[in-house]
Amino acid sequence: MIIPTYDDMLAAHERIGPHIRRTPIRTSDYLNERAGCELFFKCENFQEPGAFKVRGAANAVFGLSEAQAEKGVATHSSGNHASCLSYAAMRRGIPCNVVMPRTAPQAKKDTVRRFGGRITECEPSTSSREATFARIEAETGGDFVHPYNDPRVIAGQGTCSKEFMEQTGGLDMVVAPIGGGGMISGTCLTLATLAPETRVIAAEPEQADDAYRSFKAGHIIADDAPKTIADGLLVPLKDLTWHFVSNHVHEIYTASETEIVDAMKLVWKHLRIVMEASSAVPLAIVLKHPDAFRGKRVGIIVTGGNVDLDMLPWIQ
Amino acid sequence: MIIPTYDDMLAAHERIGPHIRRTPIRTSDYLNERAGCELFFKCENFQEPGAFKVRGAANAVFGLSEAQAEKGVATHSSGNHASCLSYAAMRRGIPCNVVMPRTAPQAKKDTVRRFGGRITECEPSTSSREATFARIEAETGGDFVHPYNDPRVIAGQGTCSKEFMEQTGGLDMVVAPIGGGGMISGTCLTLATLAPETRVIAAEPEQADDAYRSFKAGHIIADDAPKTIADGLLVPLKDLTWHFVSNHVHEIYTASETEIVDAMKLVWKHLRIVMEASSAVPLAIVLKHPDAFRGKRVGIIVTGGNVDLDMLPWIQ
Repeated sequence: MIIPTYDDMLAAHERIGPHIRRTPIRTSDYLNERAGCELFFKCENFQEPGAFKVRGAANAVFGLSEAQAEKGVATHSSGNHASCLSYAAMRRGIPCNVVMPRTAPQAKKDTVRRFGGRITECEPSTSSREATFARIEAETGGDFVHPYNDPRVIAGQGTCSKEFMEQTGGLDMVVAPIGGGGMISGTCLTLATLAPETRVIAAEPEQADDAYRSFKAGHIIADDAPKTIADGLLVPLKDLTWHFVSNHVHEIYTASETEIVDAMKLVWKHLRIVMEASSAVPLAIVLKHPDAFRGKRVGIIVTGGNVDLDMLPWIQ
Repeated sequence: MIIPTYDDMLAAHERIGPHIRRTPIRTSDYLNERAGCELFFKCENFQEPGAFKVRGAANAVFGLSEAQAEKGVATHSSGNHASCLSYAAMRRGIPCNVVMPRTAPQAKKDTVRRFGGRITECEPSTSSREATFARIEAETGGDFVHPYNDPRVIAGQGTCSKEFMEQTGGLDMVVAPIGGGGMISGTCLTLATLAPETRVIAAEPEQADDAYRSFKAGHIIADDAPKTIADGLLVPLKDLTWHFVSNHVHEIYTASETEIVDAMKLVWKHLRIVMEASSAVPLAIVLKHPDAFRGKRVGIIVTGGNVDLDMLPWIQ
């Protein structure tokens, strides 16, 4: 297991600079009043492909040797990692192969293809995905970029918190959603050195609370097929992200589906930004646990904004 | 008729600085490709009360003498001007009286009240509104701040284009929606001095194209009760805004209801911001008239983001 360092994060930021946006911070007097603390929202939904995952993906893609770059990259994902890796590969002009379940939403497939990603469909099962991916990896020689359990990816995600601290001049806490733990790990990596007094809080759906239970149990617990509207947070922790979660995360809080949807709508209404349900979990837990945040300067990472606008969860 | 000057705009910017946001610019590689030009979106939907109208309102409110300020301000509006004027008055701690038709959406009334505005309801007719407003004005002594036909308001709206030019380093064209013409007039006021080579283009719904027809005819034409989804653009030009439109606007283009909704959804999807239908008319006309914009640096003013999230026009 190779654990990325603070210097890896600094090198990543240098490397990906031309390929990402230094995303702005949004604030709302209304939400501050409502939450009883000072909230800063880092708008990673404003990245060109709509999610923070372009940071880790670009770090992996632009760190490849010329020889490896010719063969490109490969991954399995039906979410933002697939489109962000395709986007980064397109910017370097190298192939990106993506294994996706044939049941994945058409809009996700369209986005991957818009960025030049080549999709190979598999059945919606772990065994089919693994077999299909092994075949594609062997055929193409593409470098496997895991969605989160990869030191290059974690170092890339860590660049978000570096900008966050520079832009806000310091925060008491940073709250990010937790699924596989890539963003949370990058946040821990950066803040442990840059701002060790800043607490890292993870926010998770009650209905996919494997990280919460892992955190309390002291070892990784993986669930089989959890269901939540926060569909970016379905995947389990892996060894590398567990390292950061178990060593650096201060607390994990959970929120119900209703609380997540309410927080999502609040942000759309008062910050006037489009963000995913997964990105609403941090505000949901802040509103649910006001005592933990009262009077603090709280940073929230808005992880992504790729939403099916025809299917909004508050409209039946 | 008092025509505001460039110096009035500069003074307004100084005066309102602490009360408004210097709103960010959003860009999208995808929309640039689609439009065939370089688009810069100035996010006035990110003002705290959600619309550019806070600029003109704050300029009027913070320019009042102490004696007048005690009596407060008054207006008639069922839209963003009412909430923005209430917001500005709340920040100065003075009364704001608003005459609104009793049929106005509950959400609009709630917003005005959240900012401390006092609502007096009238019947949804011009005669009732005028009679009710005359009574309120006489009773309270509140200074009448017209939604757009007021030199203080136009000077305030002009501050947006000053920031826009500073933030982008220059634009070939600025496109803004036109209703009563307050934002367009402010844009003309500022750019005529600051960047006389930058063309000012107005965008209007086909179904409320009174400004277009006025522009072609050479005199103000006012429609009776036009209907469009772009409900911020229903009102007619008045003498002061006609002065700027007739002297400085380069062209007015119109777009259909479908084109407006399509452009609105495109912005939500690719810029990931929440904006009103009225704010989508500029992109709609840019996509409809590609030859007029090809290869240019085009600034679009995103005028507001107060949307009923339960009633989106593309969801039936």
